[in-house]
Amino acid sequence: MNKMRKIKGGVCAAEGFVAGAAGCGIKTGEITRDDLAIIFSGASGSAAATFTTNKVKAAPVRISAEHMRTGRARAVVLNSGNANACTGPNGLADARSMAAATAKALGVKPSQVLVCSTGRIGVPMPMPAVLKGIPSVKLGRSGGTPAARAIMTSDTFAKEFALEVTTHDGHFRIGGMAKGAGMIDPNMATMLCVITTDAIVAGTALRTALRESVADSFNRITIDGDMSTNDTVILLANGTSGILPSPKIFRHALDTVTRALARMIVEDGEGVSRFVEVEVRRAATGPDARRAAEAIANSTLVKCAWAGGDPNWGRILDAVGYSGVKMSEARTDIFYDELPVAAGGVASQTPGKKLRQIAAKKAFRVTVDLKVGKASYVVWTTDLTEEYVRLNLGE
Amino acid sequence: MNKMRKIKGGVCAAEGFVAGAAGCGIKTGEITRDDLAIIFSGASGSAAATFTTNKVKAAPVRISAEHMRTGRARAVVLNSGNANACTGPNGLADARSMAAATAKALGVKPSQVLVCSTGRIGVPMPMPAVLKGIPSVKLGRSGGTPAARAIMTSDTFAKEFALEVTTHDGHFRIGGMAKGAGMIDPNMATMLCVITTDAIVAGTALRTALRESVADSFNRITIDGDMSTNDTVILLANGTSGILPSPKIFRHALDTVTRALARMIVEDGEGVSRFVEVEVRRAATGPDARRAAEAIANSTLVKCAWAGGDPNWGRILDAVGYSGVKMSEARTDIFYDELPVAAGGVASQTPGKKLRQIAAKKAFRVTVDLKVGKASYVVWTTDLTEEYVRLNLGE
Repeated sequence: MNKMRKIKGGVCAAEGFVAGAAGCGIKTGEITRDDLAIIFSGASGSAAATFTTNKVKAAPVRISAEHMRTGRARAVVLNSGNANACTGPNGLADARSMAAATAKALGVKPSQVLVCSTGRIGVPMPMPAVLKGIPSVKLGRSGGTPAARAIMTSDTFAKEFALEVTTHDGHFRIGGMAKGAGMIDPNMATMLCVITTDAIVAGTALRTALRESVADSFNRITIDGDMSTNDTVILLANGTSGILPSPKIFRHALDTVTRALARMIVEDGEGVSRFVEVEVRRAATGPDARRAAEAIANSTLVKCAWAGGDPNWGRILDAVGYSGVKMSEARTDIFYDELPVAAGGVASQTPGKKLRQIAAKKAFRVTVDLKVGKASYVVWTTDLTEEYVRLNLGE
Repeated sequence: MNKMRKIKGGVCAAEGFVAGAAGCGIKTGEITRDDLAIIFSGASGSAAATFTTNKVKAAPVRISAEHMRTGRARAVVLNSGNANACTGPNGLADARSMAAATAKALGVKPSQVLVCSTGRIGVPMPMPAVLKGIPSVKLGRSGGTPAARAIMTSDTFAKEFALEVTTHDGHFRIGGMAKGAGMIDPNMATMLCVITTDAIVAGTALRTALRESVADSFNRITIDGDMSTNDTVILLANGTSGILPSPKIFRHALDTVTRALARMIVEDGEGVSRFVEVEVRRAATGPDARRAAEAIANSTLVKCAWAGGDPNWGRILDAVGYSGVKMSEARTDIFYDELPVAAGGVASQTPGKKLRQIAAKKAFRVTVDLKVGKASYVVWTTDLTEEYVRLNLGE
């Protein structure tokens, strides 16, 4: 009955949303690329957002959280080149000014505008350039891709994904854009994402759906909820399609969008050469499954082995061992894709050549079967390359 | 009254201890270097040991823990090239055979021999070569350095340190050797250490002293107690000097040895170019101070910035923020050596050039002053270099 079809358009795929971008020279003072984007809904609707749980929150996060209290956001202004983080009271005033200038340009209230920033931290936002840029943004239905490009930092491609969902009543659309790169699994990749839909979804339902969907997508690519100072996921629903999907249908569509964008973020991680899905199965508890999966995904040594195409299992078993979860070495099986690399805590009989072929692929799956319970958890991660280190040597 | 003097001799500095090494070709089958070492006390005394807390424990750890139940160990046999970890029941039998063969060669009981292994994991120990090597080890008072060399893996120098302590009664000696390298802070560097002393120290006092001293030295260079499958620290006291030092004097001497060896391990970490002491001050609680210090020390992004000589503070503040400790961005000061890099959560007025000079040094100190309590904690860590990744790409 319900059919989902991938469509183009990103944040402008849904009816009633327009977007645009402009160049302000935020990072260097010189305008060489677009670094400012605005997304706007002509109709008012409901909004939901999740923000970083880091205790150090960037100014735009604080201002957006304040504006979300009304749940009535209709616009988002985003910039790359400067995170407006660790900038003190001046930074807060700057984020507020960005919302106010955008609201003025769009003819809405400042509290209806959310602000997202990404880029260098601890550096004041170059406000004259930003305030000059905001009214120069030309909004239109074709602005999705330019907006997705404007928020890129070390991303190598613009991340967009959209769906048209056909229900028995008619169709609605949902689409989004994201930027990630930086570190993928762990500490400090600013991850920004804006998703728009023309479905009718009430505020409470929208917030629940977003929270749960983020937990199953973007939060699968972080450690223990570790997040940057700026991480933000925004979902705007303007109801323009006239379709009120069932919570289940809406959630399924939203999950498809968030998972697609989350996967793009991992694949485009700085210096990444492998995408690895890590599943821990039959753990004693859900938290155990997650803890073990994250210990593997965040082990520098495991990630280095993957970078070298080494189907290492000793480092994986070791990571599970120090994660503190209930396990017994003698029971644990480890697989690369479907092939056992270790069985009962010792090397399997699988020929090394076959395992090395899997570990040499751009994407593979590592499964750890603990056989002590029924819980499982999946995380998406990457290898750790010399290129990654080079990209992060500092400024 | 008490005087400590640095002396040579490593594990043979203390009276009554002999050591030696031999080559068995454990890693490759070809004898190109010494890879087996034995340390032996002519007199019986007391012994203490701490082992990895990893749930995945190598066979030699299990056998040594079993033999430690008597507290009467007089000898240690160590090998590099093979960790005898993740080797199942055969691995246990092999570790037991190593103890038995060493006991036979020395004329003691197998339960008086401890076993340490380091090297590749998941690969059976080449027992014929090892059993041939054990009786060939020539023990002597000059064997400390050959033994320290034989246990090196990717270490670039042999790690030895010894002291002569003069008390009002006369002098005693304490010295040791260690191997580290691999990962320093975190997951899986096998860290082996043997310390010997000719002081008279009863078993219970010896165990307490070792446990506390390890907590203040080797455990400062790991995360959350994360340890490899093989980590072992052994302390043998044979009483040959006839000196019974006060617990305070003995502990001070032991701490000096463990801290010197721990620092050598960090400095010789794989691909390391910077030694960084991280102190978190005025945290709300002791665990908070430790958690924040370890979050900084284990942040891949912070470590990459250090590798690049970048006196980055935003990444440090971010790490403190996601560590979950009680903190307020606006109160937090961050220093490189004695110079503030951030004050009250924003950039300080210190000239960037001065800060970059500090961050370019081979060793510096980062201090984070949270100003929310009275607890502090220090960890020792390093940068993360491309060389590190290269060394760990797998086999």
